[in-house]
Amino acid sequence: MYYLLLLLLLLRHNTGYDFFTSAGLKASDLQLRFCTNETQLNREAFVDKLKSLGFDISVSEVFSPAPAAVAVLKERGFRPHLLVYDGLLPEFDSVDKTNPNCVVIGDAAEKFTYQNLNEAFRVLIGLEKPVLFSLGGGRYYKEGDGLALDVGAYMKALEYACDLKAEVVGKPSPTFFQSVLNDMGLQPHEALMIGDDLVNDVGGAQNCGMKGLQVRTGKYRWVMF
Amino acid sequence: MYYLLLLLLLLRHNTGYDFFTSAGLKASDLQLRFCTNETQLNREAFVDKLKSLGFDISVSEVFSPAPAAVAVLKERGFRPHLLVYDGLLPEFDSVDKTNPNCVVIGDAAEKFTYQNLNEAFRVLIGLEKPVLFSLGGGRYYKEGDGLALDVGAYMKALEYACDLKAEVVGKPSPTFFQSVLNDMGLQPHEALMIGDDLVNDVGGAQNCGMKGLQVRTGKYRWVMF
Repeated sequence: MYYLLLLLLLLRHNTGYDFFTSAGLKASDLQLRFCTNETQLNREAFVDKLKSLGFDISVSEVFSPAPAAVAVLKERGFRPHLLVYDGLLPEFDSVDKTNPNCVVIGDAAEKFTYQNLNEAFRVLIGLEKPVLFSLGGGRYYKEGDGLALDVGAYMKALEYACDLKAEVVGKPSPTFFQSVLNDMGLQPHEALMIGDDLVNDVGGAQNCGMKGLQVRTGKYRWVMF
Repeated sequence: MYYLLLLLLLLRHNTGYDFFTSAGLKASDLQLRFCTNETQLNREAFVDKLKSLGFDISVSEVFSPAPAAVAVLKERGFRPHLLVYDGLLPEFDSVDKTNPNCVVIGDAAEKFTYQNLNEAFRVLIGLEKPVLFSLGGGRYYKEGDGLALDVGAYMKALEYACDLKAEVVGKPSPTFFQSVLNDMGLQPHEALMIGDDLVNDVGGAQNCGMKGLQVRTGKYRWVMF
């Protein structure tokens, strides 16, 4: 029997609702998790948005890069210097941030100032072994008034300046999928990942030992094949 | 007979003065050019600084990435969108900047805002063939209150977001050295490059067919060998 990891990039693509409801997944006895790379909203705000769209879900069912990062930080004894969107800060409330020994960046948007980037850089370059966590590796995304650089671009800037390779927390990182599996108490072969992104969803899950199911909605384009 | 290309990273390293004067180069009949990767000051301001340190030089003897970029832009019909330090803008006065078909970035310091970077990115991503010129590829440098990200870091951010490779104008780019040679009306074998940076000065010159001479002052460290 498969348990279910369900990914829907609902907010940006406005799809998946029919799939979600018509499949009757919510009414089944399958375990569900929603896996998103959202890093501007904390889970409470994310769930509120989904609820306003008619979804019956709870915070405990949502998995995003921030809580995954928190788990990694605690497990490995890291105290982060944070460069993230203000709305995401509550996710890190339980983490010791004194005397930082790593840097975590998310899609900080207008908080990606010259001063804030220099500050993050100085923390990194001052460490004996600089460690950078990036909450995703996206190149850019569409916002209200046009395209905007995503966290991946700033990750590359810091990687180059510090001559290091960032650890990406979020899809398609195996660490991300494994943290969701850990939360569910499942082995990879017991889980199925459903998504509209061939690389980040289906490919990422398969690299982690899970099965992946590609839907032809959302960002799916037939030219991907 | 060799003509002379003289590089001295004087301002940042506060060296070279003795070499410059004791060698009597200025009094000789050798042609001189000062090659610097300075991109926060225009040449007038740069020369003023050197004069205040006791140097007898003129603007026409200074070669920096901005005028080299101007030559390349005009030669190839590029109209730049500029993301550079305000002090550098006068260097681009003679360049047509309407309806941009490329982006030029320099060490823009506090002008590297989220908005300005998105603006440069949008220009690039909107072009059929995006072209990015970077006035140097430095990782970071020291400023008054600590280390700061240099233009190379922001170049990498835009390269990643747009999936392109920037053209670096400045040392050690062959284009940069060639533009100085063109200005002097010399062939590479007729010129000698003197510098304190093994990669950017000596190596760059040698890759361009010039002779290179390493001085053991300035940023020179014996561990480089």
